Amino acid sequence: MATQYEFEHPKKAFGWAARDTSGVLSPFNFSRREPSEKDVALKILYCGICHSDLHKMKNEWGTINYPFVPGHEIVGIVTEVGNKVRKFKVGDKVGVGCLVDSCHSCQNCANNLENYCPTFTLTDGSKYSDGTATYGGYSDSMVSDEHFVFHIPDELPLDAAAPLLCAGITVYSPLRYFGLDKPGLHVGVVGLGGLGHMAVKFAKAFGTKVTVISTSPSKEKEAIKNLGADSFLISRDKDQMKAAMGTLDGIIDTVSADHPLLPLIGLLKSHGKLVMVGAPEKPLELPVFPLLAGRKIIAGSLIGGIKETQEMIDFAAKHKVKPDIEIIPIDYVNTAMERLLKADVKYRFVIDIGNTLKPSS
Amino acid sequence: MATQYEFEHPKKAFGWAARDTSGVLSPFNFSRREPSEKDVALKILYCGICHSDLHKMKNEWGTINYPFVPGHEIVGIVTEVGNKVRKFKVGDKVGVGCLVDSCHSCQNCANNLENYCPTFTLTDGSKYSDGTATYGGYSDSMVSDEHFVFHIPDELPLDAAAPLLCAGITVYSPLRYFGLDKPGLHVGVVGLGGLGHMAVKFAKAFGTKVTVISTSPSKEKEAIKNLGADSFLISRDKDQMKAAMGTLDGIIDTVSADHPLLPLIGLLKSHGKLVMVGAPEKPLELPVFPLLAGRKIIAGSLIGGIKETQEMIDFAAKHKVKPDIEIIPIDYVNTAMERLLKADVKYRFVIDIGNTLKPSS
Repeated sequence: MATQYEFEHPKKAFGWAARDTSGVLSPFNFSRREPSEKDVALKILYCGICHSDLHKMKNEWGTINYPFVPGHEIVGIVTEVGNKVRKFKVGDKVGVGCLVDSCHSCQNCANNLENYCPTFTLTDGSKYSDGTATYGGYSDSMVSDEHFVFHIPDELPLDAAAPLLCAGITVYSPLRYFGLDKPGLHVGVVGLGGLGHMAVKFAKAFGTKVTVISTSPSKEKEAIKNLGADSFLISRDKDQMKAAMGTLDGIIDTVSADHPLLPLIGLLKSHGKLVMVGAPEKPLELPVFPLLAGRKIIAGSLIGGIKETQEMIDFAAKHKVKPDIEIIPIDYVNTAMERLLKADVKYRFVIDIGNTLKPSS
Repeated sequence: MATQYEFEHPKKAFGWAARDTSGVLSPFNFSRREPSEKDVALKILYCGICHSDLHKMKNEWGTINYPFVPGHEIVGIVTEVGNKVRKFKVGDKVGVGCLVDSCHSCQNCANNLENYCPTFTLTDGSKYSDGTATYGGYSDSMVSDEHFVFHIPDELPLDAAAPLLCAGITVYSPLRYFGLDKPGLHVGVVGLGGLGHMAVKFAKAFGTKVTVISTSPSKEKEAIKNLGADSFLISRDKDQMKAAMGTLDGIIDTVSADHPLLPLIGLLKSHGKLVMVGAPEKPLELPVFPLLAGRKIIAGSLIGGIKETQEMIDFAAKHKVKPDIEIIPIDYVNTAMERLLKADVKYRFVIDIGNTLKPSS
């Protein structure tokens, strides 16, 4: 039976959506707008699964209207361009990340920091300025203003490029902004999931020494042998942590669960920087004196701007920085979500949309 | 009756000391070392009362051995110099601040950041490298390596210069380091005590717009009329705080009591900086997502380096930045401490050592 979602816009579209807080995904017929003069339309080939998809599908952050089509690590091929599109042509390999619009007039937009625009529009689970829903990349097609579309260089495999668009930029941007991108520096990475494994790879590509800090001793071999980290600390091992005190110039903390900051602040040298990119729901405990005693910084960072995201993609292509992915068919997606909840993936699921998403009608 | 403290070193000295955790100060005969070839000896004329003196007198931080002579905002006149002293001569007006020694070999010492040297020696309640106690400026004389002695320019009254040496540098240094020293920026100051009132004065001298944030509506007139702040926010007034959200480039937070960070983070613009210079004893609650959403920073800062402290003094002299002080005689000091505990001082007590401290024997 046809639904309102199929006739909202002129172009037929098909994807998988969550319908309620169970978060279970199932096939969904909907529609996309006709490309305007500055729009790019693309056939989606791959879409990464971000941990935030899981929260949003169950509406754990209270921001979602159902039906909800997740997906903001989107890679595909341009199928149509508006007549004022300058950067893309039909057949180009492109990506769409976390954002599909921003106000274009605030100070952050003027500084290529659309990710800090107070009225940005998320690619999934948000609303366009006309009030219609944004549907993400667990779907066959996408239409976006060219400003929010990225070129994917030939050197990058399309499947592995997908997770760069959220996981990649989320760690690349703070490494750059907080000056943790210089050879000779020593960078810590807390948590070895989708974000953490990209932080290790980018930090190594920048020429820094990298120490992974994790609660799981089992990840040591993986971190050092497979990802190229230089050393590994078990965060619950007080002796190890004590011996490493004052050794790090900065830390990228990817952990969203509640966790103690004091040991991480202790790992920093004077003037060191602890950058949070995970988002624990409840406030963490902040011991103030250890910050004072070393003029240390705790900061947050959220994805990255559009210009910087393209720079990150080009850097990844040039330096062969590639996410480790597990390719799955769309009908495995609910199982993948269960595994993601248990951190049972190395390190990012990517849905093979092009070969496995078939219209149900 | 003479005590061991009088014969520990060759030079007789006299001051007021706390003897136990009651924190009550009373006359104390002790001794200072003979100036070595790089030492400067001074006759103390004024000493400021820092809030930390109160904590230390009662050994609330567990770092004190009694008898304890407080005082690290010391101003006086040089009475003697060692034969390798290059920067000072007898009769010079000088100051000694929080530090009297550091390791001289770590990275921080090499970078003129003795205040972050892990083995610095505090002016009061610490130990020199020979194991003898450091006695502070509630006393008639001081001997210090010239590296830790400052010139006080003629433009600065000696009494008002004293609080610059701790309160002044504690707020000047982070305003400089975190780039909150540029005309056109908007700086918030939380808490209007010894540190806060200096933060307002330095921030105004740098040409920034200054907003004072306080729990006490009674301080508004004082902040604006007397200290020159541009605006005032009552931190408990939710409407005022909401209206001011996203307006500040940075905040100097001088409050040592437990207090919520979320409203302060909300006052910051994107990429804004909240710098803690007070030291709450217990951890504060840190909400992480508001940091992420604006790439905001929470930092700590602790006094300043020796080179920067001299720069601050010279800046204060040039720009007529003077602490507001209440001069007291030494025998008022216990009463002053009770008033300080109630924040009943505008804004710093300074003990008139030169005219009121008389040897008891």
